[in-house]
Amino acid sequence: MLLGHMDEKSLQKFYRGKRILITGGLGFIGSTLAKSLINFGAEVTVIDSLIPEYGGNMFNVNGIKDKIKINISDVRDAYSINYMVKGQDILFNLAGTLSHVDSMADPFVDLEINVKSQVYILEACRKNNPAISIVYAGTRNQYGRAQYLPVDERHPIEPTDVNGINCNAGEYYHILYNKIYGIKACSLRLSNTYGPRHQMHHSRQGVLNWFLRQLINGEQIKLFGTGDQIRDVTYIDDVVEAFLLMGASNKVWGEIFNLGGFPVSLKQFVDTAIRVHGKGSYKIVDFPEERQKIEVGDYIANYFKIYRLLGWEPRITLERGIEKTLQYYKKYKKYYW
Amino acid sequence: MLLGHMDEKSLQKFYRGKRILITGGLGFIGSTLAKSLINFGAEVTVIDSLIPEYGGNMFNVNGIKDKIKINISDVRDAYSINYMVKGQDILFNLAGTLSHVDSMADPFVDLEINVKSQVYILEACRKNNPAISIVYAGTRNQYGRAQYLPVDERHPIEPTDVNGINCNAGEYYHILYNKIYGIKACSLRLSNTYGPRHQMHHSRQGVLNWFLRQLINGEQIKLFGTGDQIRDVTYIDDVVEAFLLMGASNKVWGEIFNLGGFPVSLKQFVDTAIRVHGKGSYKIVDFPEERQKIEVGDYIANYFKIYRLLGWEPRITLERGIEKTLQYYKKYKKYYW
Repeated sequence: MLLGHMDEKSLQKFYRGKRILITGGLGFIGSTLAKSLINFGAEVTVIDSLIPEYGGNMFNVNGIKDKIKINISDVRDAYSINYMVKGQDILFNLAGTLSHVDSMADPFVDLEINVKSQVYILEACRKNNPAISIVYAGTRNQYGRAQYLPVDERHPIEPTDVNGINCNAGEYYHILYNKIYGIKACSLRLSNTYGPRHQMHHSRQGVLNWFLRQLINGEQIKLFGTGDQIRDVTYIDDVVEAFLLMGASNKVWGEIFNLGGFPVSLKQFVDTAIRVHGKGSYKIVDFPEERQKIEVGDYIANYFKIYRLLGWEPRITLERGIEKTLQYYKKYKKYYW
Repeated sequence: MLLGHMDEKSLQKFYRGKRILITGGLGFIGSTLAKSLINFGAEVTVIDSLIPEYGGNMFNVNGIKDKIKINISDVRDAYSINYMVKGQDILFNLAGTLSHVDSMADPFVDLEINVKSQVYILEACRKNNPAISIVYAGTRNQYGRAQYLPVDERHPIEPTDVNGINCNAGEYYHILYNKIYGIKACSLRLSNTYGPRHQMHHSRQGVLNWFLRQLINGEQIKLFGTGDQIRDVTYIDDVVEAFLLMGASNKVWGEIFNLGGFPVSLKQFVDTAIRVHGKGSYKIVDFPEERQKIEVGDYIANYFKIYRLLGWEPRITLERGIEKTLQYYKKYKKYYW
């Protein structure tokens, strides 16, 4: 099977025996990435704080639990990260808070995790493992309100919340450590990712999975505003593929890439989910005040840069992605609800 | 006398009796601003940490010492700042580290002062004094290497050092608190400022005054590289005027402005200084490695935005500015050397 410009075999060959560290490795994206890497024969270590409100869940690594090393620690623990980076070939740096609302309620926690800890990580690599490669997970939240669509990587950075400011600083530290110290680091700015293994306790880290939870619960889905807001929606497997391609490329260091998927209105996403699920309904409700203020409006990613360089493009359709997600949660509901 | 679009009398009228807080108020710009404000009849409180390596110097407020309130504290002290903002009309937020080299040697100190403390300050204002106005001092260092000249406020933010990343986050927090909470905050991105009251102990916060120190010492001035690097050079009084105009305007909130002065090569600056001083010489030496890596190349500011809105433009010529600076330090050398 072709994954971008590489076929699965070349990718497998690249990752076989590689020592991989994943921060946030028990979370949504980290754990799914870990599964792929184990399939490819990599030696995987995951770091996760398992802070209850965040995305870490031990069930996410069900099936590969005995094949990976799990280190429960917080990226704010500089001593731990200092040790953990030693001897690793590639770091997928996914630990971070992604909640717009939480970041406004407590800017300091967001700052510690998304900025200060990133400097811990980069300093640890610079001092203890300067040959490491780092793929950092950025976010479309860095752009703020889109001034044009689709948004490419040159779009102004004008975040509408604390989280966007902090993620941007965290990302740019990676680029700086590449330029100044030659650390192989790059960033992938994610849009809205959905799929299996996302936490299902609250909607503050993404509404897409939350809609699916409401559907499975038999509840009426609540859409804020008009439901017409466009989001660029990417299925988890496509995101993981992008991370794998970036980690295996030698052309990405010092570079920033957008990721995107399918631009749909939230209403379209919900309509599709209802159709796939076979039942369900939604209602439009007013924005809660704290969300209204930081609402970014429509967002569509221009992901031509990663397409051109690595051949990556989204492959899982909305219908298929939603179907797989619903199946997963119906089966494993008790581990997520 | 006309200061931008306001005459001195209107400005004086605006500031008379106003309660003004200046962080970094014993430093180069802060203390000079305090002097102007006292002349205008404002009630001035300055906060300064007096950390020896930074710019604070009690002699800077010689002559107004008994007319201002001086609070020795660090902006990293959240409790102090929480109290100090109460009852103030305008905050000139100038505390910050500006050393490129120091920020690379210790990114964490730079992060605490330039990012975390800025959130302390903004949270303190939001909670205790949401009607306050804040003028934040940004830096051309946020832009990194100029991708075109002159650099306007829309130029990409691609800092070449940790200080630039942190100042950018610190600045954008101000803009965000304006957009989300309605705090009246704006930023003025300074280029290279020189003049009386700058610390004279090392060159890490700016080379212009350092050249003048070498001249006064009768030493040969050392120019790194070729001496052809262009800097946008602004005299302290022009910078202070810009801060005064911004604090008195109601059209600046949520906005970012470049400041500039006269674009000259470092060699031209030094040549002018030698001519004004009447003697002296320079030699070209190699860049120290830690400076070479973060050297940003030529920089010229496009300051049309503040010119158009407030009528500000630089008024003190290079010759006059250097003359005044040399006079000051010759007279008060013992307080700065």
